[in-house]
Amino acid sequence: MGIIYGKNPVLEAINSGNTINKIYAQTSNKDIDFIIKEALKRKIVVVNTDKQKLDKMIDGKNSQGIVANVTDFNYSTIEEILEYANIKNEPPFIVILDKIEDPHNLGAIIRTCECMGVHGIVIQKRNACQVTDTVEKVAAGACSYVKISRQTNITEVIKLLKKQGLWIYGLDMSGESNIYNTDLSGPIALVIGNEGDGISRLVKENCDVLMKIPMFGNINSLNASVACAISIYEVVRQKNI
Amino acid sequence: MGIIYGKNPVLEAINSGNTINKIYAQTSNKDIDFIIKEALKRKIVVVNTDKQKLDKMIDGKNSQGIVANVTDFNYSTIEEILEYANIKNEPPFIVILDKIEDPHNLGAIIRTCECMGVHGIVIQKRNACQVTDTVEKVAAGACSYVKISRQTNITEVIKLLKKQGLWIYGLDMSGESNIYNTDLSGPIALVIGNEGDGISRLVKENCDVLMKIPMFGNINSLNASVACAISIYEVVRQKNI
Repeated sequence: MGIIYGKNPVLEAINSGNTINKIYAQTSNKDIDFIIKEALKRKIVVVNTDKQKLDKMIDGKNSQGIVANVTDFNYSTIEEILEYANIKNEPPFIVILDKIEDPHNLGAIIRTCECMGVHGIVIQKRNACQVTDTVEKVAAGACSYVKISRQTNITEVIKLLKKQGLWIYGLDMSGESNIYNTDLSGPIALVIGNEGDGISRLVKENCDVLMKIPMFGNINSLNASVACAISIYEVVRQKNI
Repeated sequence: MGIIYGKNPVLEAINSGNTINKIYAQTSNKDIDFIIKEALKRKIVVVNTDKQKLDKMIDGKNSQGIVANVTDFNYSTIEEILEYANIKNEPPFIVILDKIEDPHNLGAIIRTCECMGVHGIVIQKRNACQVTDTVEKVAAGACSYVKISRQTNITEVIKLLKKQGLWIYGLDMSGESNIYNTDLSGPIALVIGNEGDGISRLVKENCDVLMKIPMFGNINSLNASVACAISIYEVVRQKNI
């Protein structure tokens, strides 16, 4: 069981057809009127609850007057992600996260993937951030749409994807090529490493290409979700021109 | 007077030559030894302080054992930003933030600008996030390098920049062109709007071109710092190929 809160996340969960057990809402709040109507239309139980109780349900965070009780996040398999690309008749585009730890980064990455039409995301089952309620909030509803697969062994996933014809591109400061002069237009998986340590050694060794984002400053260290967004955008750009 | 904390931000402040009044540090902490040495080399006073006191100085956040007391953030003028581009012999590239409110977004944007070689950032003086200690922390040291100008009237700034030959590109969902088929290679200012409301009407009317990031999902709303990063990257890409 999980909890989603805030206007957009709850509305997206309703619209996506996710399993919602119950919605707790401040029914007198005009701002959420349309969400309640949407929920009732789908025969979801809505319990009138005052704002203080709602905020308390989520440890004092701001509920915006609405909290939904949903079944645990529904992870996908790698096969489902590949099948989804197949149905859309597009070369697979998968993002593999090698131990992203910060929920804000994971949420932001999921949001970006949704907007950019990534077919699925692979996350590590251990030593990595899972899809929690904070992640769902930061992702602003995107978790209801993006297929996310949770895997124990990323190296095995990479081997499987290679067999399916995907090329594996790792984002790494030591990369020899720049993202914009690397051909990213085919079936690909993009590997993004941990915030502090980057991609782990074994995973790196299994990448076909290591590439970097060109940088021109003194710090030259981008936030993980920003680096991920820039690379995803570059893939999308190459696919479209 | 302001406060910077955490290993990287303090080290960057020292290296950049910012005015540091005093450093409070847990001198027994081996992890920050090299920072203390660097500070002493530059004749900055270092006061031995225990971890609890340090964390208290920054409202219970994690100091990583080091806190620096610095003079207020040193904002730049528009002229200084243009002069900086001139010295580097590059067409000016300025990012204008029309009321970014969230310190995490502002920090992330400053960090990205630094890595991507943006010459300067313009922020609003009112109803917008200023360069606070949280922003400096999120920016991971980038505030010590990027020129940031604080302005009351963004429209006036845009008019001034136009007179200097810059083209003003606003990022807006209603934009007619995509960022990747818009020529962004000359002297330009990129305008990014507020998280919820986008670019304000008057500022939008003063943009030469409104452009959007192509999107392919259901949510189709990127985080402000991600949208900013993608556009900045596209400018840099076009300048380099």
